[in-house]
Amino acid sequence: MELMHALRTRRSIRKYEDKPVPEALLREVIEMAMLAPSAGNAQPWQFVVVTDRDKLAAASGLHPYVTMAAHAPAAILLCGDLSLEKYPGYWVQDCAAAMENMLLAIHGLGLGGVWTGIHPIQDRVEAFSRLFNLPDNVVPMGFVPLGWPAQPASEASRFREDRIHYNTY
Amino acid sequence: MELMHALRTRRSIRKYEDKPVPEALLREVIEMAMLAPSAGNAQPWQFVVVTDRDKLAAASGLHPYVTMAAHAPAAILLCGDLSLEKYPGYWVQDCAAAMENMLLAIHGLGLGGVWTGIHPIQDRVEAFSRLFNLPDNVVPMGFVPLGWPAQPASEASRFREDRIHYNTY
Repeated sequence: MELMHALRTRRSIRKYEDKPVPEALLREVIEMAMLAPSAGNAQPWQFVVVTDRDKLAAASGLHPYVTMAAHAPAAILLCGDLSLEKYPGYWVQDCAAAMENMLLAIHGLGLGGVWTGIHPIQDRVEAFSRLFNLPDNVVPMGFVPLGWPAQPASEASRFREDRIHYNTY
Repeated sequence: MELMHALRTRRSIRKYEDKPVPEALLREVIEMAMLAPSAGNAQPWQFVVVTDRDKLAAASGLHPYVTMAAHAPAAILLCGDLSLEKYPGYWVQDCAAAMENMLLAIHGLGLGGVWTGIHPIQDRVEAFSRLFNLPDNVVPMGFVPLGWPAQPASEASRFREDRIHYNTY
């Protein structure tokens, strides 16, 4: 898929076909996430691939915006690893860049996913940490249910001229 | 450019040819940034396009990791607009996703850029806010000097098997 087309047509996909996602594709998606830039090239991230149906069902109940996980064949939990930071404080940006790479790769492979937020809502951080047995230095940032899209997706247009300023605000 | 190739070959570019970047390309890069996902689709971002040589020179002196701005034909300051958030606390992730789209679009157009960090280092936030006259609700997150690459860039490999966990940490 062409880059600009991928950027224009990537959308949040919340409905999936009842069909598994090959592990090789899940790994490719994570490989693309790992190519994101990070402060000092610290790569302060960890990934949990979730295909266990009980775990997906449990995750779907953790807060109101993640219910689609119950019907997804897979999900990826993207976490920041604070013990890997070189420049403290940048892990959120690093992991969000990795997340965007991951969402683009999901789309580029013909899959569909949706970024559901965790950090910085503390209740969610604790719930995901417990479910996936995360150590203290690993903070769940976002959870991405994914699968083969079972919903149409149209091109987005979000250009806002008024958000661009020239040389000064 | 093909998406996966773009993801694999995007690198930080810190040296630029002495040649301007057409304004249409700077706008296209920002348009791609604006297509990023955001919490509640709030799109809580603002952009300052910088082509004024005095501003670029001034920015280059604000901290030790942004000196390449003095020799860049352009830069884009990406800011979070806290007044636009729907789900408070997610603006950093939203803006970092927009940043990654922007870096990929820069690369896809044959340009090169480098993400230099601002937020959450308070000294830098204050210095950029002053230089670009930002209102209180607008927080500078990252500053991207860019131009036509004057350095070779090889493909990155950052895959780390040990960062992938299955169903539990």
